[in-house]
Amino acid sequence: MNRPTPQWPLPPPMSLALAQARAAAEAGEVPIGAVVVKDGVVIAEAHNSPRDLHDPTAHAEILAIRRAARALGDERLADCELWVTLEPCAMCAGAIAHARIARLYYAASDPKGGAVEHGARVFDQPQCLHRPEVYSGIGEDAAADLLKTFFRERR
Amino acid sequence: MNRPTPQWPLPPPMSLALAQARAAAEAGEVPIGAVVVKDGVVIAEAHNSPRDLHDPTAHAEILAIRRAARALGDERLADCELWVTLEPCAMCAGAIAHARIARLYYAASDPKGGAVEHGARVFDQPQCLHRPEVYSGIGEDAAADLLKTFFRERR
Repeated sequence: MNRPTPQWPLPPPMSLALAQARAAAEAGEVPIGAVVVKDGVVIAEAHNSPRDLHDPTAHAEILAIRRAARALGDERLADCELWVTLEPCAMCAGAIAHARIARLYYAASDPKGGAVEHGARVFDQPQCLHRPEVYSGIGEDAAADLLKTFFRERR
Repeated sequence: MNRPTPQWPLPPPMSLALAQARAAAEAGEVPIGAVVVKDGVVIAEAHNSPRDLHDPTAHAEILAIRRAARALGDERLADCELWVTLEPCAMCAGAIAHARIARLYYAASDPKGGAVEHGARVFDQPQCLHRPEVYSGIGEDAAADLLKTFFRERR
């Protein structure tokens, strides 16, 4: 992409999600991070950890949603925002709908595995019971660079 | 449905999944159960528990997959079968693909929330990295009756 890097600072939740993504890379996991915010307060942070946890469901979004729901003592995350560095896959988009996340912010889009604007387009299915507001592109260059560097170093 | 109830016994993993579904109903959860089998041995059983666990991702399939992966110490459930009483949703179908489940057996189909033969059709997306063999309809009357009874009693 030839777009200039934005000069304004990222919203704090996306900076935190990117920090989680960097922590994932340092742990040898694909660098994706996620943060749940309610009423302006971060209530859960997580990074992608399927290898470390021996858990194929341990994507950043799933872990952050589970932690937030545990923190609130409620299976529904009403009025919560999820900030994540990559477009969610079908599993994570489904979890976002089940959790009733109000707003989804993701950085980089993912034509290969994303299921919001690609592939299964989970929120666009008539049977989807809850569709969050969706905002994308915030911090996408930083998020995509982390992924590119991670995979380049492993080739 | 006016089809006669089959007289042959159900395969043992589906009987166990139905027993898990009944346990869910007794716990006040939507009655869905799942079992993971490897080499003919049951390595994980679970029932739907989002309310009890305060976890929107705690569908029977997700819990069974997580338990099986922990038992094997591997994020991938190669050569494993998942037996579940209802057609998986988008979240669970995504998890099944991530876990590399070899064969999926489900009882009742779910036009409202299923994402295998309905809606998002997760395994039919070109970007889906792993598609299990899929078998459906085994024990569907028993599975559907459990759900109907559960929702009728709560109306």
